Amino acid sequence: MHWNLTAAPARFSVVAAAAVCALLLSAPARAQLITFSKQDLIDYTAQNPFDRFPDGRPKLPDDLLERARDLSAEDIWGTLHDKEGFRNQYADGFQIVHPDKPLVGRAFTVQFMPLRADLDDVAQAKAKQRGIKRLMNQTAIDMLQPGDVLVVDMFGKKVDGTIVGDNLFYYIMVATHKAGLVVDGSVRDLDGISEIDMPAYIRAVDPTPIGNVMLTGINVPIRIGGTTVMPGDLVVGDREGVYFIPPQFAKEVLDRADEIHIHDEWTKKKFAEGKYKSQDIYGSPSDPRLQQEYKEYLQKRLEEIRRQRSEKEKR
Amino acid sequence: MHWNLTAAPARFSVVAAAAVCALLLSAPARAQLITFSKQDLIDYTAQNPFDRFPDGRPKLPDDLLERARDLSAEDIWGTLHDKEGFRNQYADGFQIVHPDKPLVGRAFTVQFMPLRADLDDVAQAKAKQRGIKRLMNQTAIDMLQPGDVLVVDMFGKKVDGTIVGDNLFYYIMVATHKAGLVVDGSVRDLDGISEIDMPAYIRAVDPTPIGNVMLTGINVPIRIGGTTVMPGDLVVGDREGVYFIPPQFAKEVLDRADEIHIHDEWTKKKFAEGKYKSQDIYGSPSDPRLQQEYKEYLQKRLEEIRRQRSEKEKR
Amino acid sequence: MHWNLTAAPARFSVVAAAAVCALLLSAPARAQLITFSKQDLIDYTAQNPFDRFPDGRPKLPDDLLERARDLSAEDIWGTLHDKEGFRNQYADGFQIVHPDKPLVGRAFTVQFMPLRADLDDVAQAKAKQRGIKRLMNQTAIDMLQPGDVLVVDMFGKKVDGTIVGDNLFYYIMVATHKAGLVVDGSVRDLDGISEIDMPAYIRAVDPTPIGNVMLTGINVPIRIGGTTVMPGDLVVGDREGVYFIPPQFAKEVLDRADEIHIHDEWTKKKFAEGKYKSQDIYGSPSDPRLQQEYKEYLQKRLEEIRRQRSEKEKR
Amino acid sequence: MHWNLTAAPARFSVVAAAAVCALLLSAPARAQLITFSKQDLIDYTAQNPFDRFPDGRPKLPDDLLERARDLSAEDIWGTLHDKEGFRNQYADGFQIVHPDKPLVGRAFTVQFMPLRADLDDVAQAKAKQRGIKRLMNQTAIDMLQPGDVLVVDMFGKKVDGTIVGDNLFYYIMVATHKAGLVVDGSVRDLDGISEIDMPAYIRAVDPTPIGNVMLTGINVPIRIGGTTVMPGDLVVGDREGVYFIPPQFAKEVLDRADEIHIHDEWTKKKFAEGKYKSQDIYGSPSDPRLQQEYKEYLQKRLEEIRRQRSEKEKR
Amino acid sequence: MHWNLTAAPARFSVVAAAAVCALLLSAPARAQLITFSKQDLIDYTAQNPFDRFPDGRPKLPDDLLERARDLSAEDIWGTLHDKEGFRNQYADGFQIVHPDKPLVGRAFTVQFMPLRADLDDVAQAKAKQRGIKRLMNQTAIDMLQPGDVLVVDMFGKKVDGTIVGDNLFYYIMVATHKAGLVVDGSVRDLDGISEIDMPAYIRAVDPTPIGNVMLTGINVPIRIGGTTVMPGDLVVGDREGVYFIPPQFAKEVLDRADEIHIHDEWTKKKFAEGKYKSQDIYGSPSDPRLQQEYKEYLQKRLEEIRRQRSEKEKR
Amino acid sequence: MHWNLTAAPARFSVVAAAAVCALLLSAPARAQLITFSKQDLIDYTAQNPFDRFPDGRPKLPDDLLERARDLSAEDIWGTLHDKEGFRNQYADGFQIVHPDKPLVGRAFTVQFMPLRADLDDVAQAKAKQRGIKRLMNQTAIDMLQPGDVLVVDMFGKKVDGTIVGDNLFYYIMVATHKAGLVVDGSVRDLDGISEIDMPAYIRAVDPTPIGNVMLTGINVPIRIGGTTVMPGDLVVGDREGVYFIPPQFAKEVLDRADEIHIHDEWTKKKFAEGKYKSQDIYGSPSDPRLQQEYKEYLQKRLEEIRRQRSEKEKR
Repeated sequence: MHWNLTAAPARFSVVAAAAVCALLLSAPARAQLITFSKQDLIDYTAQNPFDRFPDGRPKLPDDLLERARDLSAEDIWGTLHDKEGFRNQYADGFQIVHPDKPLVGRAFTVQFMPLRADLDDVAQAKAKQRGIKRLMNQTAIDMLQPGDVLVVDMFGKKVDGTIVGDNLFYYIMVATHKAGLVVDGSVRDLDGISEIDMPAYIRAVDPTPIGNVMLTGINVPIRIGGTTVMPGDLVVGDREGVYFIPPQFAKEVLDRADEIHIHDEWTKKKFAEGKYKSQDIYGSPSDPRLQQEYKEYLQKRLEEIRRQRSEKEKR
Repeated sequence: MHWNLTAAPARFSVVAAAAVCALLLSAPARAQLITFSKQDLIDYTAQNPFDRFPDGRPKLPDDLLERARDLSAEDIWGTLHDKEGFRNQYADGFQIVHPDKPLVGRAFTVQFMPLRADLDDVAQAKAKQRGIKRLMNQTAIDMLQPGDVLVVDMFGKKVDGTIVGDNLFYYIMVATHKAGLVVDGSVRDLDGISEIDMPAYIRAVDPTPIGNVMLTGINVPIRIGGTTVMPGDLVVGDREGVYFIPPQFAKEVLDRADEIHIHDEWTKKKFAEGKYKSQDIYGSPSDPRLQQEYKEYLQKRLEEIRRQRSEKEKR
Repeated sequence: MHWNLTAAPARFSVVAAAAVCALLLSAPARAQLITFSKQDLIDYTAQNPFDRFPDGRPKLPDDLLERARDLSAEDIWGTLHDKEGFRNQYADGFQIVHPDKPLVGRAFTVQFMPLRADLDDVAQAKAKQRGIKRLMNQTAIDMLQPGDVLVVDMFGKKVDGTIVGDNLFYYIMVATHKAGLVVDGSVRDLDGISEIDMPAYIRAVDPTPIGNVMLTGINVPIRIGGTTVMPGDLVVGDREGVYFIPPQFAKEVLDRADEIHIHDEWTKKKFAEGKYKSQDIYGSPSDPRLQQEYKEYLQKRLEEIRRQRSEKEKR
Repeated sequence: MHWNLTAAPARFSVVAAAAVCALLLSAPARAQLITFSKQDLIDYTAQNPFDRFPDGRPKLPDDLLERARDLSAEDIWGTLHDKEGFRNQYADGFQIVHPDKPLVGRAFTVQFMPLRADLDDVAQAKAKQRGIKRLMNQTAIDMLQPGDVLVVDMFGKKVDGTIVGDNLFYYIMVATHKAGLVVDGSVRDLDGISEIDMPAYIRAVDPTPIGNVMLTGINVPIRIGGTTVMPGDLVVGDREGVYFIPPQFAKEVLDRADEIHIHDEWTKKKFAEGKYKSQDIYGSPSDPRLQQEYKEYLQKRLEEIRRQRSEKEKR
Repeated sequence: MHWNLTAAPARFSVVAAAAVCALLLSAPARAQLITFSKQDLIDYTAQNPFDRFPDGRPKLPDDLLERARDLSAEDIWGTLHDKEGFRNQYADGFQIVHPDKPLVGRAFTVQFMPLRADLDDVAQAKAKQRGIKRLMNQTAIDMLQPGDVLVVDMFGKKVDGTIVGDNLFYYIMVATHKAGLVVDGSVRDLDGISEIDMPAYIRAVDPTPIGNVMLTGINVPIRIGGTTVMPGDLVVGDREGVYFIPPQFAKEVLDRADEIHIHDEWTKKKFAEGKYKSQDIYGSPSDPRLQQEYKEYLQKRLEEIRRQRSEKEKR
Repeated sequence: MHWNLTAAPARFSVVAAAAVCALLLSAPARAQLITFSKQDLIDYTAQNPFDRFPDGRPKLPDDLLERARDLSAEDIWGTLHDKEGFRNQYADGFQIVHPDKPLVGRAFTVQFMPLRADLDDVAQAKAKQRGIKRLMNQTAIDMLQPGDVLVVDMFGKKVDGTIVGDNLFYYIMVATHKAGLVVDGSVRDLDGISEIDMPAYIRAVDPTPIGNVMLTGINVPIRIGGTTVMPGDLVVGDREGVYFIPPQFAKEVLDRADEIHIHDEWTKKKFAEGKYKSQDIYGSPSDPRLQQEYKEYLQKRLEEIRRQRSEKEKR
């Protein structure tokens, strides 16, 4: 939580009337130390098969986000591990605030670096020229859209590395429609945050407010653990960690997950019968009759799932 | 849990009839290696605005303890961080046994050091002269009062560093009226302790009983993590860590927290309306109408809170 | 979870029809790099007072397993700590999947080592000669019996060190009647595993499937943390860690635990009365009347417990 | 060392004839994922009081570099700590290869990120358009000038995070005139590197060649530990760690260090006399005669030092 | 150092007259908990192209050991990394006692496990039947041959995990002709050991003597870090870590290293000329004239090296 | 090194004229938060067989200090390990500045705690009443005597936990006659300190000066790692760690070490002959002739050593 009633935290003063907000959606991308233009974003995400936001960020359709709520890290591993050059998309080692809530959304990336006044002063002056009163965590937070997951590179900082407390966490919950937060850094007000219905993946908790850092990039490529994250990636978190899925693979991951889920269903059903050794059934049955049984089961269930989906969409 | 049925743990034999207990409240302070006299305690806590226990320890009033149950680490940070020379009052990195129960109470400090027989033999002899059969963890535990939080410097020891198991944990719960335990060391019987309704902040768990240590101080200044703790400090723990608040700041912390809580309430209420960017509202609104709205809200809620409190006290 | 639909993980292909399974119960013990014959097992567990499985593994009776569900680490420490040469039977530092479920069963041990193709090729060839299609994790898993706890030395490996995902975890639950899993390594599919009603003690979680390791021993002596585990040991896990109890001490541990539990009951009852200092009651009372009271209480409760047990067995 | 005789390491093939090299000095700044134009560099280092390289990078004069060889971390701390917003310029925790050689030079920064093929393919294509055969570690290394310290953000990667082996380390020694290397990552061939006369600050050593990463920036702002490093910073390393000094403070740091060194000289001289308590002399003497003595000593030595320097320059 | 003058360390008494020693070379392999027969050893090292010791252990020829003194970890990585199933042969993270001395020899493996008296008593009884007074560290040490490197799995134990002090270290130096020691555990007497001219790779140092462990295998397959080590492996250590090379690859590793060393020589020679960018020369030159130059250089130097070797052998 | 030329570090201003120094030797013991009177010191070190300093601290004779320069951690372990209640006298995990110089001296203990202004203000006021201008690190340093080792409990603090830089390190070298420093904290100016001829055992290095701490005890019982250190203990450090030997055991440790050293001499001499297995000679020979040989050797060498010592003393 908690507003510092007498003074804003060092170097993070309060800003910006509603009038500025329209500006925010396009302008800030050029005001920070690290910039990544709309054209850069389009060039580097050229394989994105979906729409884009006005600033060039890939926009995964809502129905795919909805389906992604059933994904686990293993579902995704299966698809991405086979793709040369995409084996670094998984990060773990987080403290997970609501491990029972799936984290799903489009990556909205933010980068901080250790404060260095000569750089920050120039960046703040450039921001001011563009009508932004102050570059700070809220500059980015106020740009969030429904379905966005805020993904923050705070370089693992604990003390003074608290991206939000419970008030701004609450704001993010409202703005993103509960999509979530991933921060390679910390939060404050864990008691307050624990009561708010949005998943969060954090490194630590600390009572200090954010400070001694500078906002250096909004929707630029960032690093989280051993992972390179791009604006617009599909973010999926489960009890193990977080996957950042390039949009061009989202559909394949989801389709393959359908089959995996059906296979899991069938495998457990057979195990529950108590008649088989694990090797009779899993990875795949060797007995041709069981193979056939599974094949039919898979077919039937896939059809059911697809029918349910299309009915749901009609409504 | 669990009593060693055939033999007391090495160097911790069983002692002390009820007759001795009256003695315990005054005498032990002079029997350990490290001593801190009643006069020392009064000198070093001269700023304490409240009553004192007979042994000189500051005694925060019960109604302030009650109010402190709503404090979070951030509430306290706001006040203490501004005070030169009081930035080391927070310790974290604990395993928290009941994170959903607030830890609140008056610090009752205990210090252990690695066993060294020449020193321990002298201390035990001195203790015996004062009518104490044996200096041990229970010597301190039997001095606890309602509202005390037992704060133990066990120098991070895990194996043999278990201040209590579930039996003595149960005793502490009864004696302190569920106030709590902080130990820079370990406990045993986590299964048993988990069923007992008192918060505990510990470093580790181990099946060994306490051993290979010596009790070196009761209600002396101790160190917990990077914090200096004094007997009579207000101890407050939340999901993040523990604050040790010198009594002279307790009232200010609590009054300021009232305002912070109201500000949080109002901020979230405004965010929930969905009409504002975060910067319109938080840290503080720039729009004069919103400023006025908040000012009135704050006034109204402060009055309500105070009214409720005074009514409660009347009852 | 989740079957890799297009290809088996490297070096772990799918095998074995039901016909092979009879073989599995006896043959595999001679096919791995590290072997431990039936005679070895009998020689080294000569003090086992109970029956044995056909392969020589000690078989603790079911009623003792049932009683062991009330044990905590401290109950066991009390007995084993007094036995010269048995102070290394406790391992901790695990992530516990269902901390509220007691882990109890007979140790079924499995050892993996880092893959080295020259050794693995020979071992696989030897296995094939004995009718085993492939040495792999499922080779061991398909040998599990009701009441077995699978204890796996995966040398702390996280990435590629996942002994099972949720499908095989489900199989183990069915095969062992929910007894449990201890792995000095990792699992995958934590979301799936969290929904399955069986306790698990693991070091880490990872989305990768098992790989880059070789199965080197089934029911051989293994090391878990600082502990030497033998096939047939009584495995007991609580919120703190896991004890591996040699069968020759199982009865003594359980009988002594009965007394400890009664002592805990009585101690807390007295504390709840609020009339005593902790030293009046705990470790043991010094007042002869209290000593007598406890003695009678102990006697009465022991008789009750024994009566209940014998009635239960009659049913 | 050692050339992979049969194949280039994955994604790092061999490139670039001498003809390309002229190009390298200007072009690469626009070919990587993260770009920082000449104008950016000039804007953000506007306080640089010295010349610049053709690409805009501040160019500290050689005589200041020479003087900086006497600096220690404490000399620098004294000056930078007093400057608001410049308290993050120190990084430590390195394995230091030649701790007896001072590390001094102008920062040449390089950034790597975890490999992600979609981004790397675009960057490589853009590089090719600019006449660069392949973006790789050698692309940056071949741009080094005498006096440059290569400062590499390899995000702490050990395995596959080896910026160079002994061959390229040798090349850097030749190209930079032994200035040095700082890598938040690893090197290979420590035996070979130990024999080469250039200081290096590394996180780890590993036999793997660089791989599974992509070059994302040359002379862009980077992060090393808790420090933001700019191209052209004065880099100074001693037995403790590395300071990155913004060019605008270099002169002040060096002048102040002269006084500190004289003060150290005088202090130790007085201590060696054995007539004083430490407080008589250090921090500063309270006795007016000693104050006067020191004042004269300082004056005399400063003049000597300046004379020596100006004579040296004349030669 | 240092003999405990009044009593042997717990469970390690003193044994064995010279008459027993002949026995030691063959018998002990069957007396420990974990056994690996001569036939096992031959089966699992069937690809060994060299002679064997009487107990079946592969015996790399002395001239290859001599050549191996020039190997570095990178030389070996180049060859082994290309072999499917041999990527786990490197272990690091050691404290290296004489980093300037190459570690080279044939692996003599020893395994310890945490003491468990029931198992140790049986093993000691079996040993006694075979004429061995006591299984202990010296049982293995007294079997060492010139050229052997003692490789000990002490499961990372520090306290009580000291395989030797300076007296036995001195003995190993004499017995192995200074080949060396690798222990995943500790040593004592580092001051004394530092003065003895033999390389050692250790995890820690401690003043305690070895204790609370049992010798469970001599010349059995063991694990060191993430590596599986076989008796007879070629052990090579440099400033980075230790490689365990299966004998069947020794010749290839050494031949390839010759070429790597020549390539390094030539590369540095060209760099020293100061006329080239690194990419002109390294990995390999693109200019056909330089390619030719290198080709000729390689040929000439290989011939020189071979000539020198054959001359040396003639002498 | 290095004096902060413009301002003393926060809360550590410069003090104390030479006139005060006489006072310092007796007075400060009562001015800090934690006090330990001369009588306390005498009571708790009642077994000290040697002289005492005026403040009650045991004073080991110089000739024993001289002999202690040959001690290693193992020599001491042998004696202390057998004494019930003295198994905690060894601390390790230090960065050792001059590992080739033995650390030997009498413990002069100092304790710091995290700064807390209310306590520090009272302590400073009490100090002032006793004629001490300011309690600070130099207050203790100026009390050091020849042969003292400064042993500082700085609770492991790195940043701001630097007990000295090179100037005060130089002073300590002069004052203690090169005896040494042990700090559970850090130092600054490692480059400068490395050039000063005195051993130091430290936890870390940092460029910050000491700050945010308060001096809480001089010559009081302190804790270093898992060890309780008393003023006047014999401090001995080698390449492994530091032993704190109670004075009552110093003579026994040294006499026993003589025998251990002779045993080591003889053992290595026999090993060097190459005729024996290790078990023939070490721990102790079983062959009666060798037993006799050793017995005579021991006798002869003991006499030589004693003769040399008495001659040395005569001179």
